[in-house]
Amino acid sequence: MSVWERWLADEAAKREDAGLTRRLRARAADDPAIDLAGNDYLGLARDPEVRRAAADAALRWGSSASASRLVTGTFELHAELETELAAYLQQPAALVLSTGYHANLAVVTALADRTTRVLSDAHVHASLVDGVRLSRARLSVVPHSDVDAVRAGLAAAAEAGERAMVLVESVYSVLGDAAPLADLVVLCEEYDALLVVDEAHGVGVHGPGLVATLGLAGRPNVIVTATLSKALGAQGGAVLGPPALREHLVNRARPFIFDTGLAPAPTAGALAALRAVRARPELGEVVRRRVVALADTLGVVAPAGAVLSVPMSSPQAAVAAQAAALEAGLRVGCFRPPSVPDGISRLRITVTAGVQEDDWERAVRVLVDLVKEHQ
Amino acid sequence: MSVWERWLADEAAKREDAGLTRRLRARAADDPAIDLAGNDYLGLARDPEVRRAAADAALRWGSSASASRLVTGTFELHAELETELAAYLQQPAALVLSTGYHANLAVVTALADRTTRVLSDAHVHASLVDGVRLSRARLSVVPHSDVDAVRAGLAAAAEAGERAMVLVESVYSVLGDAAPLADLVVLCEEYDALLVVDEAHGVGVHGPGLVATLGLAGRPNVIVTATLSKALGAQGGAVLGPPALREHLVNRARPFIFDTGLAPAPTAGALAALRAVRARPELGEVVRRRVVALADTLGVVAPAGAVLSVPMSSPQAAVAAQAAALEAGLRVGCFRPPSVPDGISRLRITVTAGVQEDDWERAVRVLVDLVKEHQ
Repeated sequence: MSVWERWLADEAAKREDAGLTRRLRARAADDPAIDLAGNDYLGLARDPEVRRAAADAALRWGSSASASRLVTGTFELHAELETELAAYLQQPAALVLSTGYHANLAVVTALADRTTRVLSDAHVHASLVDGVRLSRARLSVVPHSDVDAVRAGLAAAAEAGERAMVLVESVYSVLGDAAPLADLVVLCEEYDALLVVDEAHGVGVHGPGLVATLGLAGRPNVIVTATLSKALGAQGGAVLGPPALREHLVNRARPFIFDTGLAPAPTAGALAALRAVRARPELGEVVRRRVVALADTLGVVAPAGAVLSVPMSSPQAAVAAQAAALEAGLRVGCFRPPSVPDGISRLRITVTAGVQEDDWERAVRVLVDLVKEHQ
Repeated sequence: MSVWERWLADEAAKREDAGLTRRLRARAADDPAIDLAGNDYLGLARDPEVRRAAADAALRWGSSASASRLVTGTFELHAELETELAAYLQQPAALVLSTGYHANLAVVTALADRTTRVLSDAHVHASLVDGVRLSRARLSVVPHSDVDAVRAGLAAAAEAGERAMVLVESVYSVLGDAAPLADLVVLCEEYDALLVVDEAHGVGVHGPGLVATLGLAGRPNVIVTATLSKALGAQGGAVLGPPALREHLVNRARPFIFDTGLAPAPTAGALAALRAVRARPELGEVVRRRVVALADTLGVVAPAGAVLSVPMSSPQAAVAAQAAALEAGLRVGCFRPPSVPDGISRLRITVTAGVQEDDWERAVRVLVDLVKEHQ
């Protein structure tokens, strides 16, 4: 056995001993279970018009962009998506990347360097964390949604003459809470800092996202990143902000420059979904109504987004409830350490407008019973 | 003007002064120019069967995987692609990621840590470089294809008791030369090190890639990464190697875990292209024959891959030749500093089997004339 084989075996044994080994389970196209674990918040990934738009694009443009966006991998389709995305999110410009992960890596690595101070909320997504690591910026992790701590960090950065950037999500993934965006924008303007807001869980559920809904879009010191693989039912990510930012990313962001452009099918799928979100504001309303009602029924605080976290007594209880849900035809998620910021295991329920009213009512009844039983 | 606006403006002015500003140009679906700049080496991104497979998948599975692969984002389609990809590349297991960039980030960050020694060839792709940065491994950049330098590095790592990893590409992007794989495999076995080979430009052009063609596939100390967006005409990337590696990545690779699964259309597109590569070995043969003949005609060394680099006297000459090619209906690429490892500007011509014989002959005549004129 080589050094590397032994190392892999040791790592696997450690995972197994801790009960933390995760395995992939493949779903069939005709999987009968209701998916309350994914991120198809508005049901648009399976919407007939969105599917048809994606299929038509593959037929018309081919199955690949076949090159970096800067070489020959930019199609009119990308430009169309960027224009409409920027307009809907009330931003002057947008740049589409092949994943949401890349959108976050791109922003942080192209803007921050060793001389920059990054104040990163303790709960931001792995892609923002990795962006900071890659950028080699001076990092301060700020306690979750602690505005006073951000103020102190910005004051210290100003004192040191550092260019400062604050990283938050509009709606956080695990706890589902919203960032104090209005306060943060004021603070960032006061200290001449840049606020980067990841709207992965905000766009769609809150129409154009929380930044736009709160009237904060289009300010030169507020940059938004978004994903096309959640409410917009496709794949890819986007960075939105001033045209000067877009041009900078085109010229400097390595995850943009050294990557093949987003394939035609997901590009067109996201564009069709974006049009559906605009034309059918009731989709976001259904999600928000359902999530508030379900949270109330289950006795938990309603989240700002579509994902409801229900604390469970133990990792075992969470896993048992998840299995019982699947028995009843519902796929729900499960957060266990080390994927939770506070060590508390949770059942993770995605509320989606993609489920018909009668199915949804049945799902609620099942969920109420099994939470009662396993909590 | 804020600190950030001023900084963006300064950066833009510096680019402009250096003549290095790059802009995106969108192509129409009916663009009449022949694309000799992209990476659709076998013409499969626009192959009717591949397009149809991508379109059918969007209709059948929806336009998104809608979740991380570990949650509900693994479809039977992903499993099918992974099984066939592993079989064709003669590897025991494969894991598909949403970009080739992610495949490289995943391998390096999940295997290397602060205690690992990484010997990275000076010409490897940005994604491998970023993977090393993210991993915080101990990095030694090795002079390009210098086997003695790799030996010295491995000996030093062994001396220090470091777990060692060597990063190369089977065929390098800019110069188009092949890595000394056979020598490197022997060395890595001798020193119990891991060899990671990026086959982005090898798969398809050389059937299952150079690792398999040279009989080096399936060894426990050789790991392959591949892209689905070049010869396989779609989007995404893959890591191939022992099942223990695959399981490790599923559990530990952040760019896999915290990313939405590859969308159905590009997954099915890559699968259909893979089947075409297997069924039509003449596609790779056409590319290899054309590239050798064109190199001979232009008086340059034939590359190991599909991309021919023609050194030009200056960045201006390269740009002028590129513009003249477009006038004549050919899109070719252009490498200028800082995108070249040796400061020499080059015309970059992708030889592809996707161009009919008579169009190819016309293209060759045009290229010969304009290289003569501008070199």
